[in-house]
Amino acid sequence: MTADDLVSLRRALHRRPEPAWREFYTTARIVTELESRLGDELADLHVGPEAIASDHRLAVPDDADLTRWYDRAREAGVDDVLERLAGGYTGAVAVLERGAGPTVGLRVDIDGLPQQESDAPDHAPAADGFRSEHEGAMHACGHDAHATIGVGVLERIAESDFAGTFKVFFQPAEEVVGGGKAMAESDHIRDVDALLAVHIGLDHPTGEIVAGIDGFLAVSHIHAEFTGEPAHAGGHPEQGRNAVQAMATAVQNLYGIPRHNDGATRINVGVVEGGSAANVIPGDARVVAEVRGETTELMEYMKQRSRRVLRSAAEMHDCTVSFETGAEAPSATSDGELASIVADVAGQTAGVDRVLERDDLGGSEDATFLMKAVQENGGTACYIGVGTDHPTGHHTATFDVDEASIGHGIDVLTGTIERIGAEGV
Amino acid sequence: MTADDLVSLRRALHRRPEPAWREFYTTARIVTELESRLGDELADLHVGPEAIASDHRLAVPDDADLTRWYDRAREAGVDDVLERLAGGYTGAVAVLERGAGPTVGLRVDIDGLPQQESDAPDHAPAADGFRSEHEGAMHACGHDAHATIGVGVLERIAESDFAGTFKVFFQPAEEVVGGGKAMAESDHIRDVDALLAVHIGLDHPTGEIVAGIDGFLAVSHIHAEFTGEPAHAGGHPEQGRNAVQAMATAVQNLYGIPRHNDGATRINVGVVEGGSAANVIPGDARVVAEVRGETTELMEYMKQRSRRVLRSAAEMHDCTVSFETGAEAPSATSDGELASIVADVAGQTAGVDRVLERDDLGGSEDATFLMKAVQENGGTACYIGVGTDHPTGHHTATFDVDEASIGHGIDVLTGTIERIGAEGV
Amino acid sequence: MTADDLVSLRRALHRRPEPAWREFYTTARIVTELESRLGDELADLHVGPEAIASDHRLAVPDDADLTRWYDRAREAGVDDVLERLAGGYTGAVAVLERGAGPTVGLRVDIDGLPQQESDAPDHAPAADGFRSEHEGAMHACGHDAHATIGVGVLERIAESDFAGTFKVFFQPAEEVVGGGKAMAESDHIRDVDALLAVHIGLDHPTGEIVAGIDGFLAVSHIHAEFTGEPAHAGGHPEQGRNAVQAMATAVQNLYGIPRHNDGATRINVGVVEGGSAANVIPGDARVVAEVRGETTELMEYMKQRSRRVLRSAAEMHDCTVSFETGAEAPSATSDGELASIVADVAGQTAGVDRVLERDDLGGSEDATFLMKAVQENGGTACYIGVGTDHPTGHHTATFDVDEASIGHGIDVLTGTIERIGAEGV
Amino acid sequence: MTADDLVSLRRALHRRPEPAWREFYTTARIVTELESRLGDELADLHVGPEAIASDHRLAVPDDADLTRWYDRAREAGVDDVLERLAGGYTGAVAVLERGAGPTVGLRVDIDGLPQQESDAPDHAPAADGFRSEHEGAMHACGHDAHATIGVGVLERIAESDFAGTFKVFFQPAEEVVGGGKAMAESDHIRDVDALLAVHIGLDHPTGEIVAGIDGFLAVSHIHAEFTGEPAHAGGHPEQGRNAVQAMATAVQNLYGIPRHNDGATRINVGVVEGGSAANVIPGDARVVAEVRGETTELMEYMKQRSRRVLRSAAEMHDCTVSFETGAEAPSATSDGELASIVADVAGQTAGVDRVLERDDLGGSEDATFLMKAVQENGGTACYIGVGTDHPTGHHTATFDVDEASIGHGIDVLTGTIERIGAEGV
Repeated sequence: MTADDLVSLRRALHRRPEPAWREFYTTARIVTELESRLGDELADLHVGPEAIASDHRLAVPDDADLTRWYDRAREAGVDDVLERLAGGYTGAVAVLERGAGPTVGLRVDIDGLPQQESDAPDHAPAADGFRSEHEGAMHACGHDAHATIGVGVLERIAESDFAGTFKVFFQPAEEVVGGGKAMAESDHIRDVDALLAVHIGLDHPTGEIVAGIDGFLAVSHIHAEFTGEPAHAGGHPEQGRNAVQAMATAVQNLYGIPRHNDGATRINVGVVEGGSAANVIPGDARVVAEVRGETTELMEYMKQRSRRVLRSAAEMHDCTVSFETGAEAPSATSDGELASIVADVAGQTAGVDRVLERDDLGGSEDATFLMKAVQENGGTACYIGVGTDHPTGHHTATFDVDEASIGHGIDVLTGTIERIGAEGV
Repeated sequence: MTADDLVSLRRALHRRPEPAWREFYTTARIVTELESRLGDELADLHVGPEAIASDHRLAVPDDADLTRWYDRAREAGVDDVLERLAGGYTGAVAVLERGAGPTVGLRVDIDGLPQQESDAPDHAPAADGFRSEHEGAMHACGHDAHATIGVGVLERIAESDFAGTFKVFFQPAEEVVGGGKAMAESDHIRDVDALLAVHIGLDHPTGEIVAGIDGFLAVSHIHAEFTGEPAHAGGHPEQGRNAVQAMATAVQNLYGIPRHNDGATRINVGVVEGGSAANVIPGDARVVAEVRGETTELMEYMKQRSRRVLRSAAEMHDCTVSFETGAEAPSATSDGELASIVADVAGQTAGVDRVLERDDLGGSEDATFLMKAVQENGGTACYIGVGTDHPTGHHTATFDVDEASIGHGIDVLTGTIERIGAEGV
Repeated sequence: MTADDLVSLRRALHRRPEPAWREFYTTARIVTELESRLGDELADLHVGPEAIASDHRLAVPDDADLTRWYDRAREAGVDDVLERLAGGYTGAVAVLERGAGPTVGLRVDIDGLPQQESDAPDHAPAADGFRSEHEGAMHACGHDAHATIGVGVLERIAESDFAGTFKVFFQPAEEVVGGGKAMAESDHIRDVDALLAVHIGLDHPTGEIVAGIDGFLAVSHIHAEFTGEPAHAGGHPEQGRNAVQAMATAVQNLYGIPRHNDGATRINVGVVEGGSAANVIPGDARVVAEVRGETTELMEYMKQRSRRVLRSAAEMHDCTVSFETGAEAPSATSDGELASIVADVAGQTAGVDRVLERDDLGGSEDATFLMKAVQENGGTACYIGVGTDHPTGHHTATFDVDEASIGHGIDVLTGTIERIGAEGV
Repeated sequence: MTADDLVSLRRALHRRPEPAWREFYTTARIVTELESRLGDELADLHVGPEAIASDHRLAVPDDADLTRWYDRAREAGVDDVLERLAGGYTGAVAVLERGAGPTVGLRVDIDGLPQQESDAPDHAPAADGFRSEHEGAMHACGHDAHATIGVGVLERIAESDFAGTFKVFFQPAEEVVGGGKAMAESDHIRDVDALLAVHIGLDHPTGEIVAGIDGFLAVSHIHAEFTGEPAHAGGHPEQGRNAVQAMATAVQNLYGIPRHNDGATRINVGVVEGGSAANVIPGDARVVAEVRGETTELMEYMKQRSRRVLRSAAEMHDCTVSFETGAEAPSATSDGELASIVADVAGQTAGVDRVLERDDLGGSEDATFLMKAVQENGGTACYIGVGTDHPTGHHTATFDVDEASIGHGIDVLTGTIERIGAEGV
């Protein structure tokens, strides 16, 4: 792919951002692109339900929402692949088989965000005509560039003398921490010896490469539903079983779960809702909370404590509470050997003027599911940062990437994969 | 009106229940009915914005909602009156002028509830074909009967030799405590010497009359909106200003406002809502709370304390909070002299087999605005209970009235009004 | 007793106020007084453990405290009776048997308060030399007058031609709601046909009598002890089980127990305590809470809800909680027939210029235990108010009584008892 | 000093543990020991108010407590020095001047803990007759050994050919984080070029040396006093301004202060107290809270947020709150150069079989005040760990040290100080 091709693909994806499990157009477009560029060179191209372990999808939206996005993709004219994705089974795994050698994986995520994109004249996508056509949705975290990098690296490896197997995991639903598990539970990850994952930006400027990113916080989302009994607030307050009082007690005490000496923890009650009318003792309430930990164990500590708080708060107000895990990801660590290769390759890559050995993400990512799966099988994994000048922060309305960095990412990844093919890990 | 006419009107209204400020069909139907039955006998028939002090409407729904119900009324074919009600200016005041004598008022409320009506075969409206045609709305508190009583009494007084002026206030939006103030602030109440208000049921069986109801709890609805600052829950929890923590602190402490030695108080946080996503420190939250007091002073005590709690809870979490009063009604007392007349008349009314001197409502009602307005002008007021066998409680899906009680109500009210005309108060 | 005798006795008691279960001097002095005045006329004089059901004492102070007061009484020189009271078994029941007739009881309470008495020159006890000699303790509620009335009525009945049995219950520990139960569980109350109780003051001036006081709030004291696990707050906060967090959660939610539609309720967390040092996660905490209800049922409602809150708060923070009932009293009602007799007698009593049929106490009193015991046995009971000019409120440092009202109380009670003897109830 | 001398001094101090600012015997004993051993060799021996900046003492106990311990020390017969310490001005600074060269400081702390010492037969101090003679107080953190090391090193340096100035800071009140500031604000620290501090144990066994300890959490103690208004809980709950409700609201929200992305924070409400009686709305309450941070900035963040919570909680319940800082210490870091010298010396010390470059304290220590004072003046500082086999954890009833490690500490410190004298830093 020429630099123009890369820009063109990235912008096509940018114009049609699709949030988690609704990457219908995106998946179809990637599939079409791969088929036209690589055709028979691909040993396999697993699409939708064949790419993921469907039972392990987390945080899937409701049917009405899926259908609305599905129909929108159809209107964009990508029919033939689309049917295979119906019901929110998005994503793809592309496989190149190039003889004896290690199996190397590359994971890129492809979903957009529920974020309105800026139409300010100094916002490049608006100025240059590739602003989101899906109002309220936006590629505000660079996954359009990630998908493009995935396609680009595949083509470059196909053209190289890499010996071994190379797989690209086009993962859906990263933004809701919902797709990593489904991909990690699929068979495709089983034989991977070395896994690379990549993220653009993260406050690193164009020309900077982070060889190995760590500091992934393990995360779990808790959906809790309190059920009490409504009653007339004026006439019979004593007959109510007040789900909002239970909820408020829970919120107060969730934030009060003790810090842990083993490392950083996090707790947030991100969404609350309850009751029906001013004059009715509220009989129902729900919260969506999130816990994190520097390690998976710390996340579990927060989770267990949270459940205790939620249960006791319900009990206190004679309510019941039910739980559901909305999304979840473990922590993970980049392997030093792989990071050394990346650093070495990056140091010799044109356009790269600074290489950092490591950095902390300080957030959560469900690439960790795939990293852990590979590491538990005896393989190695590494999460690579590709610097890009971004005018404003990730997840903001004026986020944008420097398209030059797409090439840097492709160069560093291709070089690393070739080196692994040549030297093993 | 014959008994059949009364039943027929009540059922027509029952079929088309309309919630607060959306009584388009209901008002139009009442107006049509009055014009056809009384025509030129009416000295005045004030409709919509002429019946109420428009600036004093409380708890008015948004335009989209008003429009939806307006259009629904138009489809039901009541066009000509309808235009005068556009924008949610519902209700009517009908006036009979019958020479020198006192001005007597009768207040009846006309709105329905946001309550799904039962379709069980033993629920009379369902069995007899006059169940609500507005899914999700229902006359579950007997205001269909109240409106019918209002029309019936007007016709009876028109036929009687009552001397004086008689006004019926067909009041909208009682269920949200939103219409009483607008009617009490209109000029129509100014010259009323004696005001009667009426409610059917209230756990009294058919044949029972309560001469004077008291125990109206003063009520006020507080809409509070907390505004903080969202932040990434994993990356920068310390940068958030957490509106949900503020809200939870407020809820805990609102319910903890001390009881008052002067009488009963109530507090309820009926609706809460806040936040946007699990991984975002919630930057906004809102609550709808309700306070009540056995007296207006006690309600004010609860209101002042609530505001203090809400303000300090916001301050504690570095948020701001804004308030709006959603609806409000004072407490009031039925005057003994009027109640004596009612009791006396009721004792001589066919079908009435038991007369109670007084009873407590134990809830709130915005008829109190009109009662207080009259009393402050030196007049008297009395709130009358008309027993009716109701299979299940007010505000439930299977509430229904015994239509025989409509006649009892009309008889007692007519007799009382005639007596006032004859003897003064 | 002459008026001077009454004043002299009252002042002697006033000088030596003793709080609950420590009425050693007081009991001994009453016993001595009765023996010297009535001697053989008394059929029985039950003292200390013979006057009460010892196992039912509530809110008894610790041994060290009892001993300190016991020793103080000994120093005041009342040795011979004293030994019978050792261990905090105070109080007495004096019995006159005067032939066939009803058994009438009179209950007076005798304890002082832990309140420093004023030494201001315009405070009569200070000016006239009978201010409390026990620093930090004071007769600030008139029980010195009550005890004097008890002695006075006994002497008057002994001199009268009353036919029947008359018992005076000199009850200890009213101020902590701790003595009523022990006296009500004794055999002495069993045969009482009509019980009178008396209180001076209560904001009624000298010359006013309240024939029947009602509105006793039922009350219960809850001592709750939270036990968790301390831990180093810096080194291992996650290892603590935080009893203070449990306590704070409980406090917040105790005050939030819903109001009840059946009548007034009260909740207070009067004392809290917990933890050991700033840098130790607190492993223990305790609260003393009080619940009240307009009826015994309402008090029980508050008690059950409180226990649920306390249990769940402990559970939430992985602590345990244990309960103890510190003191308790039911509600009660004065019987109308008895009150009528009192009103009638009072109306004819010199010095009484106003008789109120009834009034509400609006507080708690453990005379209710004795009232209920008599009422449950088929007898009647009445709580009488004797007005007295008191310069400041009960339980304040400058409370004092108008000694003339002691005579009014004796006159009204004597007259009532004679009437009951003559006419029955 | 022979090994026997060291053991003998340590045991003498162990027998008379004295908590913060009450180290009367301890200071006097150290002074006596130094005078007898070093006499004229000491250039200066600053005692009590001459050793510290008196105005900067934190967390000083009340006079009664000071006097009790002072009298106890007098009884132990250490009169002559004692008078200089009256009022809780404890501690000493001993100075050796040995010609031109750097000024080296050594800080040792000398206070005991309010902890009952075990009398179990397998607890060495109990078995060997040097268990605490002060019931309820104990050297449960090894400061008896620290003081002994201080004396031992002074004597060794006096005997060595060290060139420069050497000062030992015998610091009081470390356990309450109260003495470090007073010593750091004195003039004695101003000219120190290199400061060493030492702690025994910390879970390191005998024979292990930690060359440089870091991870000191900055700490601050907040004493907050809520003042409201008491009221009768039954009669007039609405008149109270409830300080316990304010306190409970504060506790709930203090623990809920958000975690910070820059590093570890801590919060604890270690002591609470409030109210007077079950039936009185509590008008006063107080809390002692502690905040910590991995850096001084993080501690300040916690402190600012805590004050906001406390202020708003008071405001919410119409109370006032006043603050006092009980104790405070910054964070600090051991300098690498000094640590390298320590490691090097330790590696050549007999009895030392393992040297760790660094370790984290994970707690707070007010040696940081002195370390920062030196570092801000351009000097260097290092906190050294000396392993000792301790049967149970610090601050437990059966804590004890392996007396052999006292010698290791003296050897390593002496060697390090000589090296600094010879080579500078």
